[in-house]
Amino acid sequence: MGKELKIGIAGLGTVGQGVVRMLQQNETGIDARSGKIIRITSVSAQNREKDRGLDLTGYNWEDDPNELAKRPDVDVFVELIGGSEGVALESVKTALRNHKDVITANKAMLAHHGQELAELAEECKCCIRYEAAVAGGIPVVKSLTESLAGNRITKILGVMNGTCNYILTRMERDKLTYQEVFEDAQKLGYLEADPTLDVGGIDAGHKLALLSSIAYGTRVDFDNMEIEGIERISIGDIEQAKDMGFRIKLLGISKFTENGLEQRTQPCLVPEKSPLGQIEEATNLVVFEGDFVGTICLQGPGAGSGPTASSVLSDLVELARGTRIPMFGISANNLKKAKPCKSAVEVSYYLRLLLKDEPGVLAQIALALGNAGISIDRMRQYSHATSEAPVIIVTHKTNRTKLDIALDQIRNSDVSLEEPVTIRIEEI
Amino acid sequence: MGKELKIGIAGLGTVGQGVVRMLQQNETGIDARSGKIIRITSVSAQNREKDRGLDLTGYNWEDDPNELAKRPDVDVFVELIGGSEGVALESVKTALRNHKDVITANKAMLAHHGQELAELAEECKCCIRYEAAVAGGIPVVKSLTESLAGNRITKILGVMNGTCNYILTRMERDKLTYQEVFEDAQKLGYLEADPTLDVGGIDAGHKLALLSSIAYGTRVDFDNMEIEGIERISIGDIEQAKDMGFRIKLLGISKFTENGLEQRTQPCLVPEKSPLGQIEEATNLVVFEGDFVGTICLQGPGAGSGPTASSVLSDLVELARGTRIPMFGISANNLKKAKPCKSAVEVSYYLRLLLKDEPGVLAQIALALGNAGISIDRMRQYSHATSEAPVIIVTHKTNRTKLDIALDQIRNSDVSLEEPVTIRIEEI
Repeated sequence: MGKELKIGIAGLGTVGQGVVRMLQQNETGIDARSGKIIRITSVSAQNREKDRGLDLTGYNWEDDPNELAKRPDVDVFVELIGGSEGVALESVKTALRNHKDVITANKAMLAHHGQELAELAEECKCCIRYEAAVAGGIPVVKSLTESLAGNRITKILGVMNGTCNYILTRMERDKLTYQEVFEDAQKLGYLEADPTLDVGGIDAGHKLALLSSIAYGTRVDFDNMEIEGIERISIGDIEQAKDMGFRIKLLGISKFTENGLEQRTQPCLVPEKSPLGQIEEATNLVVFEGDFVGTICLQGPGAGSGPTASSVLSDLVELARGTRIPMFGISANNLKKAKPCKSAVEVSYYLRLLLKDEPGVLAQIALALGNAGISIDRMRQYSHATSEAPVIIVTHKTNRTKLDIALDQIRNSDVSLEEPVTIRIEEI
Repeated sequence: MGKELKIGIAGLGTVGQGVVRMLQQNETGIDARSGKIIRITSVSAQNREKDRGLDLTGYNWEDDPNELAKRPDVDVFVELIGGSEGVALESVKTALRNHKDVITANKAMLAHHGQELAELAEECKCCIRYEAAVAGGIPVVKSLTESLAGNRITKILGVMNGTCNYILTRMERDKLTYQEVFEDAQKLGYLEADPTLDVGGIDAGHKLALLSSIAYGTRVDFDNMEIEGIERISIGDIEQAKDMGFRIKLLGISKFTENGLEQRTQPCLVPEKSPLGQIEEATNLVVFEGDFVGTICLQGPGAGSGPTASSVLSDLVELARGTRIPMFGISANNLKKAKPCKSAVEVSYYLRLLLKDEPGVLAQIALALGNAGISIDRMRQYSHATSEAPVIIVTHKTNRTKLDIALDQIRNSDVSLEEPVTIRIEEI
């Protein structure tokens, strides 16, 4: 057995506790596999007194993560604080400037500051590893950076936010409204402190932005991503989808073509029988398409203490073994700035409208779609007690530009009573 | 960009051609990701004149792989010859003794000589990598060796032979006999030169033996594996299974418990709606269970030129980046010799018997099972024109020892007209 790899852990929440527990419990195996003794020397968290059900007596304590990041007895700084800015970002920079390698689960920070951090890491001859930042325990970062390195990646798609999938699954199974399940999820602690990160599709977007960068050799570009959450999905939408053989999933999708980089995170209708259509609860599924490998699907727990700790350990063992890989697979200076672009593929759309219950209203909608060059595959108006008529329309394949023209005309008419709900149908 | 990594490829069949094509086609991306120029310097194959649709003019040619393995302009010897013994094994040893790293797709060789080769590699301070040997393009070796390195792995299972799955899928879909699809598969070139390797479950067994070794830190033990092929599966079995909500898949399963190392490759009934039950055609699916990560499923193409080349490239890029990992994750000398053991879990079994059509025959079978302490969940006798009565029995949960006692009694009776077909029901 060689030397020690000394680590400092900043943040002792669910993930931090999982990492400490895993290192304590599986020590022998981990040391045998890494060829080094991986030893926690020091930890940092907000509250030293809190009972975490863990023996922390052997570790030095720092109140300030920045101090932890400077300690001479730390080789690897494990940032599990969270938040895109503030002390997480600051302490990671401190660690790099003090020539510590960094492991982090912080997708928000990396999605916003990935390029800057990758450049700083290279300048300081350090590594940043972040398997735990994307899809919990599933080895997506390593698979993309290493296993598929010989491929030209053509597409990434997946269910990358377990909370949204949990909400959609429970709405369907228990016939509950979005609001009811949302409140339940909040009580169960499934939601981020700012729930918009989850249900607004932002968290999935952060993850997708990181994967896109590795896959295409482009700079992380979260700002130009199309992002839409699941807040407006109703039980009715889920039931309509089911009726047509689909389920609603929050998908992250990216492609890199001659038109540029297409990145979107949005609820989609996916075939019920496809692998994506069958993902239940908090499970994640990430699909990579490469020119030689074809299609690879990786599935597993997208969150939780154990799975996320497993990914942190993967990075720790990698560093212990001496593997040193640039943050996004190639040198930060060689990452290209990609032109953002919209999807050029024609697809069908599911539309839900709430219309005035007056003669001629449906004709007006049909006309708006027809004028934009969109033909209707099916249309259904529900029987209703009020003067507001819910209408579901599924279009034939069309492009988003035409749809936006039609939607504008519908919005500007006086018959539409609320912002139309539009869901893309992904024939995966 | 750093230095060159010079490679020699022995064997220019489907996989070898794929590797050459991939290196030629994706050169820029591969070099950027590996931080080195990966350059083929020399190749070797049986027939120099054969048109492979590839430009090989820039490479040195060796008729003898052993000579290729000694060349000073080869850093990495890529063995794509195949066969567990002979020139493949010999040239790999030559390469190691000449201090070349080795990449191979040869599961048969590694399953039989893994320990010896791992020891030789360490003695010569060389690496052997073999992502392409297991599950084609799916990153199973890397995931297990690196991504899950912090876990205690508790179970591996999967569909790891695309040919068997192709045969079973087509029997079901096209209502063809095993023999008909087998002949078709042979015409299409889907079968190994010795088809028993595929349909006899041996190839899947080779792969499972390698994964078990990495997962449990044990010496490769192919010889003690229970292996059964798909040769005796009939359309009737497939239809019966379907009727009960199951499909028949050739599974590789291994577990490491206090009882020892359980390894089996055999046709099983798996729930139709489970991920394993839905694997079609030549797709592979490998499932890992770890104490912290939970369940991870990796799915993709299990064979073919492109996917397998993708895995060879994964290993090449890894070596180019300077990552050096022991063959089975830990030092060869630390691999434990595991005690082989049988499954201790009680499961239900599907039995197909061919019985004499005489009064009292069914009673005799029921008695044999009852005497062994096995109760029957369902039993069905088919209407038949001949004097041979096909009977299907599904048992309640029992253990293999009891079943073997009952089967012995049935075999020794004069009412059973052929060796009973026994298929384990895996409630995955």
